[in-house]
Amino acid sequence: MTPENLKQLLEGVKSGNLTIDKALEELKHLPYRNLGFARIDNHRCIRTGVAEMIYCEGKSLEQIRGIVTHLPENHKNILGTRAGQEAFDAIKEVLDDCIYHKEARMVVIRPEAVKQSGAVAVVCAGTSDIPVAEEAALTAEILGSRVERFYDVGVAGIHRLLDIHQQLQASRAIVAVAGMEGALASVVAGLVDCPVIGVPTSIGYGASFGGIAALLSMLNSCAPGVSVVNIDNGFGAGCQAHLINCQSQKNALRAD
Amino acid sequence: MTPENLKQLLEGVKSGNLTIDKALEELKHLPYRNLGFARIDNHRCIRTGVAEMIYCEGKSLEQIRGIVTHLPENHKNILGTRAGQEAFDAIKEVLDDCIYHKEARMVVIRPEAVKQSGAVAVVCAGTSDIPVAEEAALTAEILGSRVERFYDVGVAGIHRLLDIHQQLQASRAIVAVAGMEGALASVVAGLVDCPVIGVPTSIGYGASFGGIAALLSMLNSCAPGVSVVNIDNGFGAGCQAHLINCQSQKNALRAD
Amino acid sequence: MTPENLKQLLEGVKSGNLTIDKALEELKHLPYRNLGFARIDNHRCIRTGVAEMIYCEGKSLEQIRGIVTHLPENHKNILGTRAGQEAFDAIKEVLDDCIYHKEARMVVIRPEAVKQSGAVAVVCAGTSDIPVAEEAALTAEILGSRVERFYDVGVAGIHRLLDIHQQLQASRAIVAVAGMEGALASVVAGLVDCPVIGVPTSIGYGASFGGIAALLSMLNSCAPGVSVVNIDNGFGAGCQAHLINCQSQKNALRAD
Amino acid sequence: MTPENLKQLLEGVKSGNLTIDKALEELKHLPYRNLGFARIDNHRCIRTGVAEMIYCEGKSLEQIRGIVTHLPENHKNILGTRAGQEAFDAIKEVLDDCIYHKEARMVVIRPEAVKQSGAVAVVCAGTSDIPVAEEAALTAEILGSRVERFYDVGVAGIHRLLDIHQQLQASRAIVAVAGMEGALASVVAGLVDCPVIGVPTSIGYGASFGGIAALLSMLNSCAPGVSVVNIDNGFGAGCQAHLINCQSQKNALRAD
Amino acid sequence: MTPENLKQLLEGVKSGNLTIDKALEELKHLPYRNLGFARIDNHRCIRTGVAEMIYCEGKSLEQIRGIVTHLPENHKNILGTRAGQEAFDAIKEVLDDCIYHKEARMVVIRPEAVKQSGAVAVVCAGTSDIPVAEEAALTAEILGSRVERFYDVGVAGIHRLLDIHQQLQASRAIVAVAGMEGALASVVAGLVDCPVIGVPTSIGYGASFGGIAALLSMLNSCAPGVSVVNIDNGFGAGCQAHLINCQSQKNALRAD
Amino acid sequence: MTPENLKQLLEGVKSGNLTIDKALEELKHLPYRNLGFARIDNHRCIRTGVAEMIYCEGKSLEQIRGIVTHLPENHKNILGTRAGQEAFDAIKEVLDDCIYHKEARMVVIRPEAVKQSGAVAVVCAGTSDIPVAEEAALTAEILGSRVERFYDVGVAGIHRLLDIHQQLQASRAIVAVAGMEGALASVVAGLVDCPVIGVPTSIGYGASFGGIAALLSMLNSCAPGVSVVNIDNGFGAGCQAHLINCQSQKNALRAD
Amino acid sequence: MTPENLKQLLEGVKSGNLTIDKALEELKHLPYRNLGFARIDNHRCIRTGVAEMIYCEGKSLEQIRGIVTHLPENHKNILGTRAGQEAFDAIKEVLDDCIYHKEARMVVIRPEAVKQSGAVAVVCAGTSDIPVAEEAALTAEILGSRVERFYDVGVAGIHRLLDIHQQLQASRAIVAVAGMEGALASVVAGLVDCPVIGVPTSIGYGASFGGIAALLSMLNSCAPGVSVVNIDNGFGAGCQAHLINCQSQKNALRAD
Amino acid sequence: MTPENLKQLLEGVKSGNLTIDKALEELKHLPYRNLGFARIDNHRCIRTGVAEMIYCEGKSLEQIRGIVTHLPENHKNILGTRAGQEAFDAIKEVLDDCIYHKEARMVVIRPEAVKQSGAVAVVCAGTSDIPVAEEAALTAEILGSRVERFYDVGVAGIHRLLDIHQQLQASRAIVAVAGMEGALASVVAGLVDCPVIGVPTSIGYGASFGGIAALLSMLNSCAPGVSVVNIDNGFGAGCQAHLINCQSQKNALRAD
Repeated sequence: MTPENLKQLLEGVKSGNLTIDKALEELKHLPYRNLGFARIDNHRCIRTGVAEMIYCEGKSLEQIRGIVTHLPENHKNILGTRAGQEAFDAIKEVLDDCIYHKEARMVVIRPEAVKQSGAVAVVCAGTSDIPVAEEAALTAEILGSRVERFYDVGVAGIHRLLDIHQQLQASRAIVAVAGMEGALASVVAGLVDCPVIGVPTSIGYGASFGGIAALLSMLNSCAPGVSVVNIDNGFGAGCQAHLINCQSQKNALRAD
Repeated sequence: MTPENLKQLLEGVKSGNLTIDKALEELKHLPYRNLGFARIDNHRCIRTGVAEMIYCEGKSLEQIRGIVTHLPENHKNILGTRAGQEAFDAIKEVLDDCIYHKEARMVVIRPEAVKQSGAVAVVCAGTSDIPVAEEAALTAEILGSRVERFYDVGVAGIHRLLDIHQQLQASRAIVAVAGMEGALASVVAGLVDCPVIGVPTSIGYGASFGGIAALLSMLNSCAPGVSVVNIDNGFGAGCQAHLINCQSQKNALRAD
Repeated sequence: MTPENLKQLLEGVKSGNLTIDKALEELKHLPYRNLGFARIDNHRCIRTGVAEMIYCEGKSLEQIRGIVTHLPENHKNILGTRAGQEAFDAIKEVLDDCIYHKEARMVVIRPEAVKQSGAVAVVCAGTSDIPVAEEAALTAEILGSRVERFYDVGVAGIHRLLDIHQQLQASRAIVAVAGMEGALASVVAGLVDCPVIGVPTSIGYGASFGGIAALLSMLNSCAPGVSVVNIDNGFGAGCQAHLINCQSQKNALRAD
Repeated sequence: MTPENLKQLLEGVKSGNLTIDKALEELKHLPYRNLGFARIDNHRCIRTGVAEMIYCEGKSLEQIRGIVTHLPENHKNILGTRAGQEAFDAIKEVLDDCIYHKEARMVVIRPEAVKQSGAVAVVCAGTSDIPVAEEAALTAEILGSRVERFYDVGVAGIHRLLDIHQQLQASRAIVAVAGMEGALASVVAGLVDCPVIGVPTSIGYGASFGGIAALLSMLNSCAPGVSVVNIDNGFGAGCQAHLINCQSQKNALRAD
Repeated sequence: MTPENLKQLLEGVKSGNLTIDKALEELKHLPYRNLGFARIDNHRCIRTGVAEMIYCEGKSLEQIRGIVTHLPENHKNILGTRAGQEAFDAIKEVLDDCIYHKEARMVVIRPEAVKQSGAVAVVCAGTSDIPVAEEAALTAEILGSRVERFYDVGVAGIHRLLDIHQQLQASRAIVAVAGMEGALASVVAGLVDCPVIGVPTSIGYGASFGGIAALLSMLNSCAPGVSVVNIDNGFGAGCQAHLINCQSQKNALRAD
Repeated sequence: MTPENLKQLLEGVKSGNLTIDKALEELKHLPYRNLGFARIDNHRCIRTGVAEMIYCEGKSLEQIRGIVTHLPENHKNILGTRAGQEAFDAIKEVLDDCIYHKEARMVVIRPEAVKQSGAVAVVCAGTSDIPVAEEAALTAEILGSRVERFYDVGVAGIHRLLDIHQQLQASRAIVAVAGMEGALASVVAGLVDCPVIGVPTSIGYGASFGGIAALLSMLNSCAPGVSVVNIDNGFGAGCQAHLINCQSQKNALRAD
Repeated sequence: MTPENLKQLLEGVKSGNLTIDKALEELKHLPYRNLGFARIDNHRCIRTGVAEMIYCEGKSLEQIRGIVTHLPENHKNILGTRAGQEAFDAIKEVLDDCIYHKEARMVVIRPEAVKQSGAVAVVCAGTSDIPVAEEAALTAEILGSRVERFYDVGVAGIHRLLDIHQQLQASRAIVAVAGMEGALASVVAGLVDCPVIGVPTSIGYGASFGGIAALLSMLNSCAPGVSVVNIDNGFGAGCQAHLINCQSQKNALRAD
Repeated sequence: MTPENLKQLLEGVKSGNLTIDKALEELKHLPYRNLGFARIDNHRCIRTGVAEMIYCEGKSLEQIRGIVTHLPENHKNILGTRAGQEAFDAIKEVLDDCIYHKEARMVVIRPEAVKQSGAVAVVCAGTSDIPVAEEAALTAEILGSRVERFYDVGVAGIHRLLDIHQQLQASRAIVAVAGMEGALASVVAGLVDCPVIGVPTSIGYGASFGGIAALLSMLNSCAPGVSVVNIDNGFGAGCQAHLINCQSQKNALRAD
């Protein structure tokens, strides 16, 4: 339930289009709905501005089906992350209105067009980093950010990165996705005046340790303006980039 | 050299108040000045929006004195970070116009009042985390953000945190500083709709491993909306929070 | 063999219901029975108050069958832990009187109703943590503790946890199961006056390192009153919680 | 402020011995007192049953003095942990009524005799582990547990441990303190039917890694009934052992 | 080629039973035979007293077949270690005279009875450790040591270990195999006056890290007289125990 | 595109054999070609002297096919590394002119004979290290280095290594490939006067940690003259050895 | 108390030279003497064949003095290890009859000439490893082994090691002490037919991690016949080498 | 003793300027001189082409004096590395003819002008990395390479690096020294066609782990052509760069 939904609901009551009983029915499951094995935090979206989401990895198909079945009917654009084909099939089975983004391993449940504004850039170092980059880009888009993608711009061929300098400079937040030595985040942050969110990926040879090399590299960035999310956590980076991007909208409401 | 300085210089040329020769003299050290042992990146502030700074740890006093001596005269509010008393004394010796913030181990060189706007909150879990929190808060303030401090609000007494919920919710960026298990970042991010920058600190008993426990904890935050900087890196968090805070100012210049 | 069994056996001898030869036969396998590949420690339950158990992972099906075949006939409620379907089938083959708890991956051999008393709470942060939580809860129940379950109460939605504050406060021991950043244990321990046993789980994104992040987080808890068992070790936590819970029963026998 | 204090205060109001204004004055600092650099959680003791304490390591002497100065006057037996001689001197300076336990590096502020009941045992493997063992023993004693100490009973001479088997078996909780390979916790837990709290210490040769070897050893204990606190965390173990020990007292108030 | 073989060959030449050409043919492959992809070190057994062996893991079946095909004909009791069923089948295909010890995952190529003397004991903590223990026991036996096995004598039931104290004390070398916390090696070394070789195994719950917990535990043994081989390295421990055991045989040849 | 290709193209223009339009068409994809999911860095070979290559692991078959389809037609000897059979089949499907080196898991696309000069030696410790050694050897050969292979010369039989001392001494660069304890690099570097490139491999028993033991060993080599590439990174070592080998060719063009 | 002492005491009783009361007095402190802060395990030497020793690091000077004061009068050659000058002075103060070996940081209390037999070799890689090597050599000598020292024979100059091949081959046990990459143990074990005890030292550049690189290297030795003790643990290695060396003496008493 | 020295000595014998006895005296200490605590490997320089050097850290002043005293008289340019002021004073005491390079912590014993040829570049990321960079540069110079230094060219201001692109491209080997995230090596290797030797330094904030972050970053470089030496190992990098640089000189003697 987004703040927008909540406002509509209250306006419905005010205008008499919605009976108080109906509104209560809807509201009583706030702040969460207890399924026994899960307490769906319907309130989170209002409270924290980020997407409702179901992290599919490590959940049984029964659990996934159960959670999806109990999603409030008017909630839109709920994300199923880390969803393999089987998880998607399970969701589809109980709720047909959903789309699968295979590369990003993401399901959008009850997809609905969102106005996209602001400017978020997602860059990645190599072709193998694209799935994580796509998870970030899709997440930010569905939350309402306009996103530009620049893929395969790793620092071993620095000219590829310098070529897109202007576009990067024009962003409000940049997600930099890189495995191996993760130098991309530092170099980008040295070029722009907006926050850079580094996402280390688990791509790489031997001593990359499933992304730790890139993680440490980004944490030790010699350029200020870099903060980091967990390895392969495209979803988290997308949320963070969107939150940064949309602080501007809050702007009008606050006296500076 | 800030963008403001640069603009003044160009306007000086335009108006005839500044000879072209003088302007050239000033500009020729852009983008950096090579001292042999250091190439001062005067251009960084314009390019990346973050503070000019001298990381004092690991530099000899001679090197520090050398760098400070060659700072362009009209540059203000340059930060010396990780500065012990000795480093401060060395700076003071060659450039008297500076202030020492002992708790934050920070020197502000050629301090100058800055208009502070927007809203950044800095919270920390325990009294021992204050030096890092102060480094973050001072950095953001000097860059131009309005900062509120909430110290000693760790999750072992969750009511202390709930009490300041409203103030946190009103921020555009929150810096959450915590050692030990670092749970503060997750709990805060679950309460607000703005980006949270986690700063793990090296405070703690045995298996905190100099902050790694808190670092991992923050990276694995169950709440989206958290990104993390390096252990004890208050400066980096302050820069990042300021950059987020000031994306709003850029706003006017961009069509959404 | 539980202390209860032993007492019955000795009373049988005293009353003449049991011949000394028969009693000797039964007793001679104490303290253990040597199968060559295993020395079954029948005495452990009497000595340490915890369940007889067979850790199935890493044992061949032959070994499991062999151990089960040699279990003394009057022993009840023996636990087979980390038992996949195959291990359960192997046990069932040689000893039909057993039940499989699939979610907890646990077999109860010769199940027998146990009086459950006291108050143990098992809380877990997310749906994915349930298998480990169930292992803990079942273990404590079979040993004789009354257990209440509170699942999916992670700190990213702190209100879910505050809602059950009263119930938690009424417990004698709480098992807190959490993956990712494991903050649950700290927050719970800050709310109650009974011991909290933290169980980190191997659930999580990249740098959770199979549960190490949660483990370190719990070890570094800023709230005293937390002790920790190994990653995913629901069985150990269930034993520990039961031992704490039943120290109260011992009470009557001791002068304070 | 202990529950006992609170009860007295309320009875004072009831009996008219205490004006409401005075009581309010006392109560208004609940649940915490904000000193700016610290929010003293006066309520914790009531809420969680553990000691009020000041963790001295990493705090400046000014901060320590500040915190001690603002301790409510009727609070007793407040612990200053990890207190070197300097920290003790600072405390003493502002509050003369305190005792220093040098070996345990602990200060007891406003010491007051406490009735000690129940049975906690503290065992340690070697002479070098005694400071940590003393921290645990003193903590439990001050909270109100009767404590027996058994020092230098490491497993390399197993007979020393077998000799005290009876005494250990008679305890309600055992704190097992050991460095090096930390095997003590496992061996003890295999001998008794009460919970064992392992405390790894940072004592040892090369690859003990400041206590990690012992920590891992205890976490991987082959005997159920062991839970673990952080390296060198005698305070935490003392609290945990006391909480276990005193669940028995709660007993009377609950129907089983 | 064992020293015994070499002596026979030289005596054959001396007695005229073997032509010099034939002897040369045999000897010319000393010290090794270059197959391009492998240089079989026929000389190692003479030089170092340990078994010729083929480490099968990580070798292709073609490579294994190639190496076995080129083994000198009169070499006996060559060990194929870490041999799964497929590796055994490949060996069997080119050299029928071999035996498979499935539990130890070991093939003995051209098995031949060996006089076994001295006294080596192999103890292990749990049933799951048996495969590694068997690898150690078989290796020592094939090299010529008399071996006694004591399995499932872990320290959680210390009486099982005390029962075999006499037999352990009578050994010249003891191999102690244990996973989890690996305390077995310390406790055994505290009971006997012969060298103990610890073998950590990769058995265990979460934070055993594939044997690292046991490895560290053994390295940090509080009892002198323990040295350690790599995780799961039963072969190495068997060699080492045999070398210790047979230093006694060398005895006669040296003046003390 | 190699420098040789570029020179031919320019000579073609000069001589009139190539129209300017055709040359421009060819050149305009310099420095890279943007496929959306990949920016092929055609310029790298000219700029850095190393092979064009496609790292196949972690790329989808579609991506591999896409990249291969867009390779400029006159580019030769492009390497597909970490290519399993499936990756090879995908490449073969769109570009028939390629060869598969199964042991090295390498595809050479549009293979073309190269003049091999200089002297690079590739040594490896054991048979299991050969795949990595072959990756290094093939890479260096295709780039134009003459390579000699010496396999299975590990330090446990030091005579095998001393036997090839002369040949090693005659090399301009040596690649030393070893798993387990990785001592080969140190011993080789102590024997020769040319640079040694160590390649740790992920071969080994328990605590080799997938090659970390060998990696650390090589990094800590007591012999100067060793530098190291990542675990199993035969390709990188082959490039580095070739670059060293061919600095000699540059020689003529520089005044010493 | 050595077995020899015990035998003398019993013979004294038998011959009437010692009253039974006196003998009892002496014996009653077996197996240990409880000082409160220490339980001196007088029995260990008889039971395990290794030296009585006091590990001085981490003990207070009072504790050291206390332990030394209570050493039974007829015990000889007790070792104080890791003893700095201060620890030695403390020992000397209460028991004048002692010698300090500064390089090995070892005190011998009540030194007494011991017949040295058998053959133990101690080799070390570099000059910086000598303190650890000396600890090992002295320990073995005092326990009764004849020891030969070969220092600074690291593998970077392999000829230094080959020169002493004959002497090494003639040993019954070899202690190989090395820091940095620790290759010495492997190379030595490839040359001899007796057990090699590796002792990694904490000497080395950056990524030696205080001896971990050498430790891992030795654990992963490609040569069987190597077992390892903890980093810098010369004492343990000396004990182990002596135990191996003296298994031969036991020989006569056992039928093979 | 350099090859040049050896040649002079032999020519001296040939010409009769040197008696055979004198020459023998000089030669007999080859290949090493046994001081008991050190075996000086005089032969290394001839054999491996790198400098004779004394690693001072961890050696006692007596040992350093002893080694220096026994240096053959005609040996020149011997390096004392990791030499603090005290080590330098000790060397100076016994051998006056030496120079101290304080920043590089290096002593040159019997300094002698060397013809410098070829082209080695040493770049470093920040001012704090200079000591390590200087160690590398001085080492290469003393061995005979011409060295160019480019300091403070980190990737956070990429223009500083692009400015020196031409000079880097003209080198035969580049040493890239960087702490923090170590991205410098990757970016440089992406720009040039000569081998790059990465030297991670121990400079940096929290999770740089004393250089591990930079080490991993460099090992995982996305650009081929990078190999790495140990953390802070400027000496090793200088040797390696010189060996690469001087392979060109060997050139003339080999047929390609």
